[in-house]
Amino acid sequence: MPFTETRPVPEAPIEPVCCAPASREAIGTDEAERLARLLKAVADPARLRLVSLVAAHADLEACVCDLTEPLGLSQPTVSHHLKVLVDAGILTRDKRGTWAYYRLVPGALGSLAERVLGL
Amino acid sequence: MPFTETRPVPEAPIEPVCCAPASREAIGTDEAERLARLLKAVADPARLRLVSLVAAHADLEACVCDLTEPLGLSQPTVSHHLKVLVDAGILTRDKRGTWAYYRLVPGALGSLAERVLGL
Repeated sequence: MPFTETRPVPEAPIEPVCCAPASREAIGTDEAERLARLLKAVADPARLRLVSLVAAHADLEACVCDLTEPLGLSQPTVSHHLKVLVDAGILTRDKRGTWAYYRLVPGALGSLAERVLGL
Repeated sequence: MPFTETRPVPEAPIEPVCCAPASREAIGTDEAERLARLLKAVADPARLRLVSLVAAHADLEACVCDLTEPLGLSQPTVSHHLKVLVDAGILTRDKRGTWAYYRLVPGALGSLAERVLGL
């Protein structure tokens, strides 16, 4: 709608007419906070490599015994990073016999770009 | 290869035979550090909402005047968050006339899941 009036616009809404409005809904505050927590859990080089290592395995599951050595970090450090990823809901942990197995939670990260970007 | 020898294996590699090997290559250290920096830039509720707002606009571009009010934050705070996103290579900034326009860099975030997860 062309803006032809000359008298000043009273108060709100402050809505400049410089550009096209959003064509779809952006994420809300609650969703943004939830996603930010998820992203903080993976925004670490060691944890990204752990997620990537698990995702590289068949069935998206890897034994902890296969995760420590490639990272070049101590076993307690790797366990700490794995716990952060489990607490964030990115991996699940399943103890079977001697070993713990970590599995990627389907959709935990995969649809992140979709939710934020609408891609 | 079956492990049939009884004498101790000299030293490395420590390679337990508990599970299947990785079926594809995981990301390396350099790539993990680069992606962690990118993720840290968006791992913040306000910045996620900014990215989402820009992505919601036609042409993936939005005027700064359309980004401040939906966030409910002060203009300097929004400018700070936008600068972090520009510095991280997630948005570009283009000053045209009175306003600055922010555009989503194609592929900056969209292929993240692909690179980490091989999805």
